[in-house]
Amino acid sequence: MKHITSRDNAQYKELSKLATNSQARRKAGRSLLDGVHLCETWLELRGHPEQAIVAEGALQNPEVAAIIARLEADHAHVLCLSDQLYHAVSQVEHGVGLMFLIETPNKDVPHALSVNAVLLDNVQDPGNVGSILRSAAAAGVKEVYCAPGTAFCWSPKVLRAAMGAHFVLDIYENVDLPALVQGAQIATLATSGYAAEQLYQLDLKRPVAWIFGHEGQGVSDTLLNGATHRVIVPHLGNVESLNVAACAAVCFFEQVRQNLG
Amino acid sequence: MKHITSRDNAQYKELSKLATNSQARRKAGRSLLDGVHLCETWLELRGHPEQAIVAEGALQNPEVAAIIARLEADHAHVLCLSDQLYHAVSQVEHGVGLMFLIETPNKDVPHALSVNAVLLDNVQDPGNVGSILRSAAAAGVKEVYCAPGTAFCWSPKVLRAAMGAHFVLDIYENVDLPALVQGAQIATLATSGYAAEQLYQLDLKRPVAWIFGHEGQGVSDTLLNGATHRVIVPHLGNVESLNVAACAAVCFFEQVRQNLG
Repeated sequence: MKHITSRDNAQYKELSKLATNSQARRKAGRSLLDGVHLCETWLELRGHPEQAIVAEGALQNPEVAAIIARLEADHAHVLCLSDQLYHAVSQVEHGVGLMFLIETPNKDVPHALSVNAVLLDNVQDPGNVGSILRSAAAAGVKEVYCAPGTAFCWSPKVLRAAMGAHFVLDIYENVDLPALVQGAQIATLATSGYAAEQLYQLDLKRPVAWIFGHEGQGVSDTLLNGATHRVIVPHLGNVESLNVAACAAVCFFEQVRQNLG
Repeated sequence: MKHITSRDNAQYKELSKLATNSQARRKAGRSLLDGVHLCETWLELRGHPEQAIVAEGALQNPEVAAIIARLEADHAHVLCLSDQLYHAVSQVEHGVGLMFLIETPNKDVPHALSVNAVLLDNVQDPGNVGSILRSAAAAGVKEVYCAPGTAFCWSPKVLRAAMGAHFVLDIYENVDLPALVQGAQIATLATSGYAAEQLYQLDLKRPVAWIFGHEGQGVSDTLLNGATHRVIVPHLGNVESLNVAACAAVCFFEQVRQNLG
């Protein structure tokens, strides 16, 4: 474990640049995982981080201490910062004092949609994107494709809301969704409050690609027209629509239900 | 329409106290609806507000102007504030410049649970509470009961996330949930990641009361033990759990599916 107590340390300066600047992280292909839950899940599913960063005071926390002890036993790269230096780089208020710096997972986009997938067309709110990733992972959907306007999946807010779902998913960003839909080998289902086909009438035992859209405007016309199905979640109540993350959960778990039954 | 341009106006001072202080609103039994969508939905479902408050500049917005014209035609109470005064009381950044002040709906708690209901036990996040209200309204669940630790339903964040669902629901706050569950005339279903009974095995054609809990700790042991059923949403994936609002949507719409089928 390397201890740093000076702001002028070169490694600290480098870390500070990455931790406080999301553009710098994107450019460097790096992400930050903050807190015990995300770090533990990463360790379990993906292995060591590039760097673990711990606040000196957080070593008193038994959960944090256990993680650090495990990393130290494996000779992994651990930086221990004075509390003051740590809190100068942490973006989380009242955080526990533990971060992992990781290489942002990055794979080439598959040639064609062929397994269960979710396509996010301009979904804006990081909490919604995180919740959708979490539900997808829980429902066994493996692939996530995001159009350029969708919230950046590796941002701290999306990471926090998804609770580690990122690490079991293949996430592709800045994807040309209309081209992907056009070349799909499976049914593509665009959700819409104005569609005629009800969710519960679909055969979901085969793999499908779900398409969800912008919180206000919904899925773009290009994708609605390009999809093989336009699907509505039927309502019994007197309100306009569902939140997009709630709608996604209902769709994913209708597929779970059909596959269990 | 009354125009106010002075900070010293007595009506403005009163409004300012209510608008900028949630404790004052709760004490006065008043809530603020911010934005065109919430105000329009209130007008449609509940009628006139106690007071409409509009920023002078917002009268250029055709949607706002239409609402104000309608209120004026009905001789409703409209306050027009200079933009500066308006933005000093508005709690919404980049808001459209329209608020309704309403009397917070408040009914006596029914004697016993007898129709579809949702019980929120210490759900903390206002976005989650708002999303649950929105899904409940869309699924035709009519009653909402909140334990004291749950986020205040009439806060601006919950109102914004629920998109007007409040106005078709009966919402009861600070409710003794264990007593309510004990006296229930219908099945009470506590959701839990450790339960044995699967959601899809339940008979949901009868009315039920759903119980959802704290984002981290789940439903309290007292309620888990007091409920007639402990229910799990079965997962196919490799992650721990669903977001509580996603879980609620899945449960409500499984009930919709069974009642449509």
